[in-house]
Amino acid sequence: MNTIVLKFGGSSVADNIKLNVVAEKIISLKKEAKNIVVVVSAQGKTTDRLIKEAQELSAVPDEREMDMLLSTGEQMTSSKLSILLNRKGCPAISLTGWQAGIETNLVYGSAKIKEIYTNRIEKELEKGKIVIVAGFQGINERNDITTLGRGGSDTTAVAIQAAINADKCYIFSDVDGIYSADPNMVTIAKRLDEISFDEMQEIADAGAKVLHNRCIQIGKKFGNDIIAKSTFSDKGGTRVCKGIETRDVKSIVKNDGLITVIMNNKKGVTAEQGYVIYKNLLKENIIVEWFERDSDSFKFRIKKAELNKVQALLDRKFSEYEIVLEDFIKLTIVGYGIIQDNVILNKTMDILKEYNVEVIKVSLSQAKIEIVVNDISSETMELLHKKLIRKER
Amino acid sequence: MNTIVLKFGGSSVADNIKLNVVAEKIISLKKEAKNIVVVVSAQGKTTDRLIKEAQELSAVPDEREMDMLLSTGEQMTSSKLSILLNRKGCPAISLTGWQAGIETNLVYGSAKIKEIYTNRIEKELEKGKIVIVAGFQGINERNDITTLGRGGSDTTAVAIQAAINADKCYIFSDVDGIYSADPNMVTIAKRLDEISFDEMQEIADAGAKVLHNRCIQIGKKFGNDIIAKSTFSDKGGTRVCKGIETRDVKSIVKNDGLITVIMNNKKGVTAEQGYVIYKNLLKENIIVEWFERDSDSFKFRIKKAELNKVQALLDRKFSEYEIVLEDFIKLTIVGYGIIQDNVILNKTMDILKEYNVEVIKVSLSQAKIEIVVNDISSETMELLHKKLIRKER
Repeated sequence: MNTIVLKFGGSSVADNIKLNVVAEKIISLKKEAKNIVVVVSAQGKTTDRLIKEAQELSAVPDEREMDMLLSTGEQMTSSKLSILLNRKGCPAISLTGWQAGIETNLVYGSAKIKEIYTNRIEKELEKGKIVIVAGFQGINERNDITTLGRGGSDTTAVAIQAAINADKCYIFSDVDGIYSADPNMVTIAKRLDEISFDEMQEIADAGAKVLHNRCIQIGKKFGNDIIAKSTFSDKGGTRVCKGIETRDVKSIVKNDGLITVIMNNKKGVTAEQGYVIYKNLLKENIIVEWFERDSDSFKFRIKKAELNKVQALLDRKFSEYEIVLEDFIKLTIVGYGIIQDNVILNKTMDILKEYNVEVIKVSLSQAKIEIVVNDISSETMELLHKKLIRKER
Repeated sequence: MNTIVLKFGGSSVADNIKLNVVAEKIISLKKEAKNIVVVVSAQGKTTDRLIKEAQELSAVPDEREMDMLLSTGEQMTSSKLSILLNRKGCPAISLTGWQAGIETNLVYGSAKIKEIYTNRIEKELEKGKIVIVAGFQGINERNDITTLGRGGSDTTAVAIQAAINADKCYIFSDVDGIYSADPNMVTIAKRLDEISFDEMQEIADAGAKVLHNRCIQIGKKFGNDIIAKSTFSDKGGTRVCKGIETRDVKSIVKNDGLITVIMNNKKGVTAEQGYVIYKNLLKENIIVEWFERDSDSFKFRIKKAELNKVQALLDRKFSEYEIVLEDFIKLTIVGYGIIQDNVILNKTMDILKEYNVEVIKVSLSQAKIEIVVNDISSETMELLHKKLIRKER
């Protein structure tokens, strides 16, 4: 092979011992590939720690400044890994997002990559160096640092693969591939050998902390396979590719990271008011999953992680409303074509009924069934998995 | 006043509580000055921690990569302080060294500022923002991040003052000015109200961890006073300025951060060999205080902090020599004109004799007496101070 891109996640680079495993892995892959670009995340819980420290300073930290702060995590990892590789006699150089030519749009906190100017990366590869790029970040036209959102290093890797036309892109983490459910929750979850981009997209959208959303879109757009593997084992792995749609359930995802915000106004509410609220949410780059108007309330669903920001906005501009927060669980059953008959949906409803799970809402699309419930136990999740996912494949 | 530059040291920004004190100080100064540029160091022991982590990965970390790593410390502080000021309703923006237009030469680890392109700083000041610059760092013509050496944030501040023609530059730290000796060591040490650039330079050269060397040079060059003050008190302070030379002893500095390296070769050594060794040390940007050739050895003095680097060089290129390391203490007695008679030197020698301090070497220059000794107790330091420094001034 000529060129490969490797991405190592936060838990793979969490400390110096793990960095050493990563360095050895890179050195062994150097025998197979002439050019290697490595993309790294921040070490372990670094990003969480920085967010926490910032939130102690401000409940709603300025977003440009947050990107400035958070981008340091990946920069630290990249330079450390480069120090280690150089010490092992393997020439390497670390590059920040802006040094790697990654230009994004103007959105802070969840910027999109517009363009990658690859000349620096290519120049360093030509010198025979392993190029280590700080993931998750770029630079915008104001010369300010932006970040791509949680998990954005995946996107950095796949976007670089496309930009430099690399042969393969490996996403290394502490799990050995994509599973049919979160193995920490569902003991019988199994690893998938292959999954299509569209199904993978639904799994990521559903809130599973696997591949970053944008990374799958870019892989699909350029038709480049993404290989998810374990840093700590040569076995296993899942290939995300064009694939064949099998009408099987591929994955069941439980998402408890969302919350419903209800804005009550006894005087009643108008469509015009709804428009103003919605526009304000969008202006602050809040991802609104769903927005609804009743006679005297608005309801909308957001990520719990964005609740502080939303609450600050509501306090500031819409203090006349009474705010109620409602917790819920979103189940997503992913599989291309599974809604073409009602077999899966029937089985699911029966199980949920049997276990007294209160179904609040169901919605269907080509590659998934989405069910909003009040709560769901591990036992019920196990049973759903057992009944819906084919054993042999 | 129109424009002021404030620099806050690592211990002044060590945690969120201290950052809050700094933010309040900036807000109160905003009433006096239209434009404020703030330069910050890394928080508390961040730089030390990063150096330690890097040295666990490599005894001699690649210098370009070290700069990449260490520069994150100041970037984190700058964005945090900006988050806090914005939350307090005081518009602020953080800038890295490269965003602030600080261009340096190509030396890593102790780069010199070549030029400051002030357009971004000035644009943000015009918008009414407090501009917070990550100290200690810049960018070189290769588009790589460089650092200015320990204490380099002082230099960033004074260089920005000169570049934007600011009215005043305050260097804030956890001490309320420059002292006649390290107050942690000499209990009767007193704060100086004023000191000349030249004397200050000698104190810094002598190894006192006060102002960064280059910062004093820049202050002197542009004739801009530097005011050293405490972050946590409005009282006190020392003005570093052109000043009047008084022929008084201003300060006594004890430096235990140096070491003598002796390279023995039983076959004898030649001037040519000495030249090659010296050139190699210079090539690696080692600061060699002093270099000497005997019949069968070379001796030279370096900073203990650079010992790893030197040892790696000697192992690699000069393994035929037997290496001996010799600890010592360097005392520097600073005062412009104090060597114009022998009064101070006489008193000093008598005390050292009385306390059995072994004098290895004495050297004189216009503004200082330098004495190399085997060791010196706190008691002897106190007595030296009592006898040499005038009580009333």
